[in-house]
Amino acid sequence: MTTSTPASALVKSPAEDGKVYYSYADIHESVSRLVPTLREEFQPDVMIAIGGGGFIPARMLRTELKAPILAISLELYDDATNTIRPKGVVCHQWFDENSEPGKLVQGGNVLIIDEVDDTRTTLQYAVELLLEKCQPKRVGVCVVHNKNKPKKGILSKDVAYYAAEEVEDHWLCYPWDAAEYGRSIVQHETLARQCSEESCGSSS
Amino acid sequence: MTTSTPASALVKSPAEDGKVYYSYADIHESVSRLVPTLREEFQPDVMIAIGGGGFIPARMLRTELKAPILAISLELYDDATNTIRPKGVVCHQWFDENSEPGKLVQGGNVLIIDEVDDTRTTLQYAVELLLEKCQPKRVGVCVVHNKNKPKKGILSKDVAYYAAEEVEDHWLCYPWDAAEYGRSIVQHETLARQCSEESCGSSS
Repeated sequence: MTTSTPASALVKSPAEDGKVYYSYADIHESVSRLVPTLREEFQPDVMIAIGGGGFIPARMLRTELKAPILAISLELYDDATNTIRPKGVVCHQWFDENSEPGKLVQGGNVLIIDEVDDTRTTLQYAVELLLEKCQPKRVGVCVVHNKNKPKKGILSKDVAYYAAEEVEDHWLCYPWDAAEYGRSIVQHETLARQCSEESCGSSS
Repeated sequence: MTTSTPASALVKSPAEDGKVYYSYADIHESVSRLVPTLREEFQPDVMIAIGGGGFIPARMLRTELKAPILAISLELYDDATNTIRPKGVVCHQWFDENSEPGKLVQGGNVLIIDEVDDTRTTLQYAVELLLEKCQPKRVGVCVVHNKNKPKKGILSKDVAYYAAEEVEDHWLCYPWDAAEYGRSIVQHETLARQCSEESCGSSS
């Protein structure tokens, strides 16, 4: 696994509840900062968005990378065992490798996109399933946030790895989940702004 | 086609360039306002996001509607003819009706999601393809914006129709396309805020 993170990262501190809140603009800015690196180093022919977390960053990236998006759906079940091969992941939707843009996967540079790399289990599964079913020239993984913590999943050294932000192991609250926390988007984005100001909370 | 739009709509005026700019929060607020109606009237078992435009509103809706998202990819080619059957649309990705959550489409309430209803061509094609391939109990269409203009595409009266906003026939600029217009997301969202203030431009 070769890794890349942009030089200037977003500085966010946890809110009083210990969670870190992100606005849509935060996410958009973070993935945009990755674009020059993705263009120069990886040149994706096609993106695979892991649904639903990858949908929003993939759509944001598409405007700048001009690569079409395929969507897959994977679900990570709770896994008591600590085995490397992630049996706990189930595939709900795949794509047709014989029609456009699925065809671009064969022999192409394929960038798998998700919101957060937490345990890495889903990402490992996505990469392995892709290599089992198709023969891409090169596989990359791109996430908005990589949590700085021990990983269960492993990505082989051939996989190019791009994280828009390296973050501590906090609970990350995304704007599309605002209702999950009982908040309107305006309330959520106010919190997200507070987490971007030095006066807010502490990450210690 | 039965239609529903929420009572309190977002008031936006065009910017000086005649285009109307939307922030992510604008889009999120608009689709959120549809949620009570969608829950009461339609109760979707599964959503079908038309990629890439439907990805972001579908992911926003998923948190509140709790329905899984299937993704399809359709491309509308320029169509010189004015025929009702939209031959100009090509399907790039469909889903597997035999595995979860594709199975939910058979006999289920299926909500097709896109960003904007402009000519209605893509939406008609999506509905027809769905009815050709599957036997849903009920089909609904949900868009963020319905442009108030004559439509090429036709949706049958059995199709439930939900538009988060009814808008004039302006050029709509979405935040995920900010780079398309040579702007950072911060610049785009500033313009979007200006379009929400009475002092900005005129819709006459």
